Amino acid sequence: MWTVIVWPLLCLASAVFADDVFKKNIKERNYLLQKELNMMLGNDIVLSDSEDQANKIIMKLKNNELDYGFNNPQYFNYSKHFFEYKDDIKKSELFKLIKDMPKGAVLHAHDTGILSPDYVLSLTYWDDLFVCFEEENIHFLFSLELPKLPCKTAWQLMKHARYSSGNVKKFDAELRKHFTLVTKDPNQVYTDINVVWSKFQQYFITTSSLFSYKPIWEKYFYDTLKALRDDNVMYLEIRSVLPTLYDLDGNKYDAIDTAASYKKVLDTFLEVYPDFYGAKLIYAPLRFVDNKTVKEYLKIAKELKNKFPDLLAGFDLVGQEDLGVPTKEFLQVLSEASDEFEYFFHAGETNWYGTSSDENIVDAIVLKARRIGHAFAIVKHPLLMEEAKERDIAIEVNVVSNTVLKLVEDIRNHPLAVFLSKNLPVVISSDDPGLWEADPLSHDYYITFVGVASRHADIKLLKKLALNSLYYSTFPHKDKLIHEFEIRWTKFIDTIVQDHW
Amino acid sequence: MWTVIVWPLLCLASAVFADDVFKKNIKERNYLLQKELNMMLGNDIVLSDSEDQANKIIMKLKNNELDYGFNNPQYFNYSKHFFEYKDDIKKSELFKLIKDMPKGAVLHAHDTGILSPDYVLSLTYWDDLFVCFEEENIHFLFSLELPKLPCKTAWQLMKHARYSSGNVKKFDAELRKHFTLVTKDPNQVYTDINVVWSKFQQYFITTSSLFSYKPIWEKYFYDTLKALRDDNVMYLEIRSVLPTLYDLDGNKYDAIDTAASYKKVLDTFLEVYPDFYGAKLIYAPLRFVDNKTVKEYLKIAKELKNKFPDLLAGFDLVGQEDLGVPTKEFLQVLSEASDEFEYFFHAGETNWYGTSSDENIVDAIVLKARRIGHAFAIVKHPLLMEEAKERDIAIEVNVVSNTVLKLVEDIRNHPLAVFLSKNLPVVISSDDPGLWEADPLSHDYYITFVGVASRHADIKLLKKLALNSLYYSTFPHKDKLIHEFEIRWTKFIDTIVQDHW
Repeated sequence: MWTVIVWPLLCLASAVFADDVFKKNIKERNYLLQKELNMMLGNDIVLSDSEDQANKIIMKLKNNELDYGFNNPQYFNYSKHFFEYKDDIKKSELFKLIKDMPKGAVLHAHDTGILSPDYVLSLTYWDDLFVCFEEENIHFLFSLELPKLPCKTAWQLMKHARYSSGNVKKFDAELRKHFTLVTKDPNQVYTDINVVWSKFQQYFITTSSLFSYKPIWEKYFYDTLKALRDDNVMYLEIRSVLPTLYDLDGNKYDAIDTAASYKKVLDTFLEVYPDFYGAKLIYAPLRFVDNKTVKEYLKIAKELKNKFPDLLAGFDLVGQEDLGVPTKEFLQVLSEASDEFEYFFHAGETNWYGTSSDENIVDAIVLKARRIGHAFAIVKHPLLMEEAKERDIAIEVNVVSNTVLKLVEDIRNHPLAVFLSKNLPVVISSDDPGLWEADPLSHDYYITFVGVASRHADIKLLKKLALNSLYYSTFPHKDKLIHEFEIRWTKFIDTIVQDHW
Repeated sequence: MWTVIVWPLLCLASAVFADDVFKKNIKERNYLLQKELNMMLGNDIVLSDSEDQANKIIMKLKNNELDYGFNNPQYFNYSKHFFEYKDDIKKSELFKLIKDMPKGAVLHAHDTGILSPDYVLSLTYWDDLFVCFEEENIHFLFSLELPKLPCKTAWQLMKHARYSSGNVKKFDAELRKHFTLVTKDPNQVYTDINVVWSKFQQYFITTSSLFSYKPIWEKYFYDTLKALRDDNVMYLEIRSVLPTLYDLDGNKYDAIDTAASYKKVLDTFLEVYPDFYGAKLIYAPLRFVDNKTVKEYLKIAKELKNKFPDLLAGFDLVGQEDLGVPTKEFLQVLSEASDEFEYFFHAGETNWYGTSSDENIVDAIVLKARRIGHAFAIVKHPLLMEEAKERDIAIEVNVVSNTVLKLVEDIRNHPLAVFLSKNLPVVISSDDPGLWEADPLSHDYYITFVGVASRHADIKLLKKLALNSLYYSTFPHKDKLIHEFEIRWTKFIDTIVQDHW
């Protein structure tokens, strides 16, 4: 009789206990997920009612795209090569919104890699351009007479070459290939990282005498500023090797003159477009050099700082890190100059874990870099990630560049996903968008938002990324910049709500 | 006069200051790098003099391989598809050492995916096997008479089909293709994750009636244990769906009988090879089900626990997470049973950040999983990584599996690199090595060591990974296991030193 009463009670107790466990687990589950959401970049942003409405519209578009990809991975573009889906992106309604979105600043871009191959092609229609076609390479030179520079075949006027080719369309199409990395079957053409870097660097070599013709140099920069403004960017910090410029009269212009050109163009641009907030220069010469040359670089930097205190943001070294000289080789020289310049070093644009290029990140940190270019590899350095966060060193992430230059294939594996999850100080930039025929900034934002970030990441992330690009800039009056950004942002939000509600 | 004296002093002071900055930076650089090295998995291991000598040998081999790849990325295999380099690995001297190395336990493997396609092919030579060739699929059945099961063409004796084909070699080569994922041009054949998963799951469907013939089932498991032992593994925890077995007399054997078969084979094996330390079973049925079925699974699990308390390690659910039912759907049922079973859930074998398959990781954690299978996506969950570490939940990483099943291309981007850098409780395993024609464990160790881990990671990592596989096992007398491991390890070290010094 006793057991008859006790057994059901025991069973009941056990069921109650089991139910308690379930409730506890559900509670813990929700707590952990919510806490993680709160840790993400952007989750300190508080949305207004209008932003909340706009967010719903944006998230509906984002989730539709993700659902479609999740259910049909064969059509999920972002796991493929950028060249295979870059044109599809333009059809996305969400992409159009992101184009319209005020995106703050571009803080990591190289001055001669921003505009499209069509634009570069149009420059070859300028008068007085000579060309030398060699088997693999092309040389350009603006000149009033036949150039005396070495040419394995023969110099000829571009105009002559083009119109004597018999087929201008075909001629231009062939020529255009030198101004882009975009190709069919990219995975078969670019079989390893050195192959794509070689083509990438060849672009800069090929175009150097085209761009360093002073009138073109100035035109290219003016049109860069215009392209950024058109892409809803309000401010720029641009890296340049500051090449020697030339003109038709045989004059040569050194790095200081080249910077002066930038200053002049910028002033003109700001007169025409006073709603643009300006540009600064990061002097960033090549890293394949010795200490003596770095000292010379720093001397030039010092002169730039004296002559153009408002223009110069600071100093960097560029070139493929795996093949270049590691920063630690220059540590003494760079340490000695560290109180004179802001540093913006490229570091860790590699996936060779534990090598000297991987460890360039630590040098950037001890040299008190204000921002680090790429830092792709920092994800494998938990301590350096903490240090970057603590010292508030921004990471300039260029997702499209990293996939085109073969650091990562499926963009969902880009370490940016980790940076966002840990609320690292990230700014999104575009590196050399002209070479992959992307918009100056919008493609990088779009892919970050839809391809890399969590499905839960919403308009707060987009706003924070734009704000970060202003906050981590060296613009002297950030209050004004951010005030203006807020005005534009509110307008953007209102337009979304009006158009979609 | 005054300035004549003071200026040089000021210059000197400035030079001294600059030199101080450099010294400070160098010190800080070394401190940060060293601190990070100390944080890595394995850096608590203290090496004996012999281990130190062996380490030098191993690191010389490793660095030579890495240098070659760094200088010639076109030949750096681990950035390519595993199928393109798996045969090259066998030529590596370092790989031979890793094969000889005692590697502890295999803790994440599926029972019918371990042995090679050649082995599976050999099983088709057994008597009484019937076959039905359909356009895309093959069906097998052992039987004394013509099977009555549906077949779109016609059942025939395998022997007859093979020898009437006119070309046995070609026949076998075609047949073998059903038992492997390995193919030429894998990136063109497996265009997205669902394509490769579909072929992967088709293997298990095709082979099911072959393997579930009771004599083959027992033979396959015996030979699995042998293959593991040959690969210097001393203990196994194997996942099984525990299918219904059959024999020629028309008998059917349910999950409990299937487990009994394992027990019987294991006992026999341990009699023949008393130096092997045994095996346990993780009952891991398919996750494409409803709550009612999960309850039935758990009932079976309970019966297994009662009948074979020493054999059953615990419970899991298997199948492609993105397409299966998320764990949270079963949270109540699994919570209710959580005090009865150890859990070893697959979770986060996805790169869809923020989706329900991604969030299976949090369910595994709140359900107090003892280990998590894959947890590939946990890298994007900083809080869950901390929780896993704090609660000492091991992560069962299967690098080769993850690259073959298209979660990551360049293995250097595998999140394992991050796990190692943060000293997460990692165990290395192999999932289904037969399907990619890899060794039972050595390929995963080798690729982890050379392809994924830091260049600085040395023998301490290798030893720690092997020790972790024992420590995070459910073997009841770990002291004995680890004692035996240490004996074998010392022998291994002595042999390296003798052979290479």
